[in-house]
Amino acid sequence: MSIKPVGGIEPPYYAVVFTPVRHDDPQGYAETAVRMDELVRAVPGFLGYESAKAPGGLGITVGHFRDTDSIAARQRDLEHREAQRRGRAEWYESYSVHVAKLERSYGFERG
Amino acid sequence: MSIKPVGGIEPPYYAVVFTPVRHDDPQGYAETAVRMDELVRAVPGFLGYESAKAPGGLGITVGHFRDTDSIAARQRDLEHREAQRRGRAEWYESYSVHVAKLERSYGFERG
Repeated sequence: MSIKPVGGIEPPYYAVVFTPVRHDDPQGYAETAVRMDELVRAVPGFLGYESAKAPGGLGITVGHFRDTDSIAARQRDLEHREAQRRGRAEWYESYSVHVAKLERSYGFERG
Repeated sequence: MSIKPVGGIEPPYYAVVFTPVRHDDPQGYAETAVRMDELVRAVPGFLGYESAKAPGGLGITVGHFRDTDSIAARQRDLEHREAQRRGRAEWYESYSVHVAKLERSYGFERG
């Protein structure tokens, strides 16, 4: 049992915290989520993400990016912009987005 | 339908992103979670948190704090330290903690 640095990613880097509230499995959502996953993995400077969703309620996704240029590249993507538009029109009751600069990270793994 | 600033909290402020992996409802966990909720609300500079957990897997909690002094006060709390110790000994398979400075926030609410 020990506390270790996380995932070999050296701070500073950026996190985008996305917290949508949506009903489960609305039409078209799952296909779009798969496509957004593909697209973000192709963004230069994308470092990974973690995602959790309670059934029928709040989801939280934390995406990690090397710098603000990586985040800007993601935001410019036209398919992503269309998915955001559709999310607001059809899927989400609400969401928040927080863009934050990571100052330190640590973690624990049962060992 | 519009994109609005989030919750009236003006950046910069800090987020602590906590991502534990645990089995559902281990012994003693629920009571401790209630107590940790009480304690964090009493921390000067605590601004709120959001939490989501997938059944049987990853949870993500994002706590918002005015500054690093607020976070340090939370970390010094002896009951919190004991809960962390117990978490590592009994409840968590793994976790990561990211401390990040919020640069911008925005959100959407169906309206």
